[in-house]
Amino acid sequence: MEEDKLVKPGERVDDLQRNGYRIIQDPGRFCFGMDAVLLAGFADKAAGKRLLDIGTGTGILPLLMEARTGIEHLVGLEIQEESADMAARSIKLNGLEDKIEIIAGDIREADRLFEAASFDVITCNPPYMIGSHGLQNAQQAKTIARHEVCGAFRDIAVMTAKLLKPGGHFYLVHRPFRLAEILVTLSACKLEPKRMQLVYPFVNKEPNMVLIEAVRGGNPRMTVEKPLIVFRSPGVYTAEIYDIYGY
Amino acid sequence: MEEDKLVKPGERVDDLQRNGYRIIQDPGRFCFGMDAVLLAGFADKAAGKRLLDIGTGTGILPLLMEARTGIEHLVGLEIQEESADMAARSIKLNGLEDKIEIIAGDIREADRLFEAASFDVITCNPPYMIGSHGLQNAQQAKTIARHEVCGAFRDIAVMTAKLLKPGGHFYLVHRPFRLAEILVTLSACKLEPKRMQLVYPFVNKEPNMVLIEAVRGGNPRMTVEKPLIVFRSPGVYTAEIYDIYGY
Repeated sequence: MEEDKLVKPGERVDDLQRNGYRIIQDPGRFCFGMDAVLLAGFADKAAGKRLLDIGTGTGILPLLMEARTGIEHLVGLEIQEESADMAARSIKLNGLEDKIEIIAGDIREADRLFEAASFDVITCNPPYMIGSHGLQNAQQAKTIARHEVCGAFRDIAVMTAKLLKPGGHFYLVHRPFRLAEILVTLSACKLEPKRMQLVYPFVNKEPNMVLIEAVRGGNPRMTVEKPLIVFRSPGVYTAEIYDIYGY
Repeated sequence: MEEDKLVKPGERVDDLQRNGYRIIQDPGRFCFGMDAVLLAGFADKAAGKRLLDIGTGTGILPLLMEARTGIEHLVGLEIQEESADMAARSIKLNGLEDKIEIIAGDIREADRLFEAASFDVITCNPPYMIGSHGLQNAQQAKTIARHEVCGAFRDIAVMTAKLLKPGGHFYLVHRPFRLAEILVTLSACKLEPKRMQLVYPFVNKEPNMVLIEAVRGGNPRMTVEKPLIVFRSPGVYTAEIYDIYGY
């Protein structure tokens, strides 16, 4: 569909550097970050018929996963109506309505929207901050995207365990300060952590992201990947990062 | 005491590069590895009156922790009588009998050897391998040091939670493939993981060790440290490793 019919005032269109795909974003709301791009890179071996992205926001994950994998049908679930509408327009902008579906809804009620054990793959770039810590305005789009005001990580894990097929894969990105809690919660939900990678901004700095792959009903033994280091020097990405971005 | 009265045939004496301390080792049994040295480096902010090292082997951890911290009394617990005897002779060799005590005993019965909540700090460089996997001979000293034939990680965590004071610190080193299980077990025993560092042999390789600090009754929020990278190039240690070794 024509770009001028899909993009609203104040929104912008960015090139995703993958398959010529473009994405609509509103800088006043929430723009995707490196987190989403690294998660798609980490999950690029994902396979199966159906993928669900929980809290899809701009729809970045379904778009990147459609470009990077052979998964047939991708669903993005987003609690914020306006974000879901914008994501759906991005899907149309790329002519992917037959492959990617955006649904406005709450993960805590996702078992009414989808059948149990109906997804091969689930991805999630969840809000990182706990509860209402540092909260300014619960209605604000950025707050909902960043803080757990619409459900905690446990809600996501419980629902993922219901919606994922046995042996299905869950890919997520989170902050390292919550690592123990996340691994404990995944394990309690029988989503066994099988692979993990820490993302370090510099080789001599603390990590600021952790990428995790869990398998529903998997055995307890995991692989920790080599470090993913973002910057070679200030402002200069490492070769790995350029590769993940597709430049 | 004189070296010739303390060292048995087949044993050797190594310099620890700390306070002039030396250690007796038997290459036919089990010699300490980089794991123990990195654990002592990771735990060098440990403080308090009493430390227990579980599975002390050669006594390397109590010796290094005595040299690196102000902890007043250090106890090494070792299930293998011959190892405990050798460790006790190393303590005498350094004239540290008043500060470091080596006890032959089983961690699974440690609540009969020590009072509950009687230690400020517990350290452990446990066997990494699960059960009798790859086991050749259950009586062999190296097998007991490397495989969980004399108790699983859960036994260590349960007993650590009993013996540690509330707010006391537990420092351990383990293999990354067991990370999820270890964090889950610590958390279940109310030993909250508070700090973690992954040890990567090279900057572009998977980690082969993980260092963890847990606090009895701590709050669920942790720090993941910058990566600890061992080799700058094949055979050449990084500055961090030289620093930890004290060269």
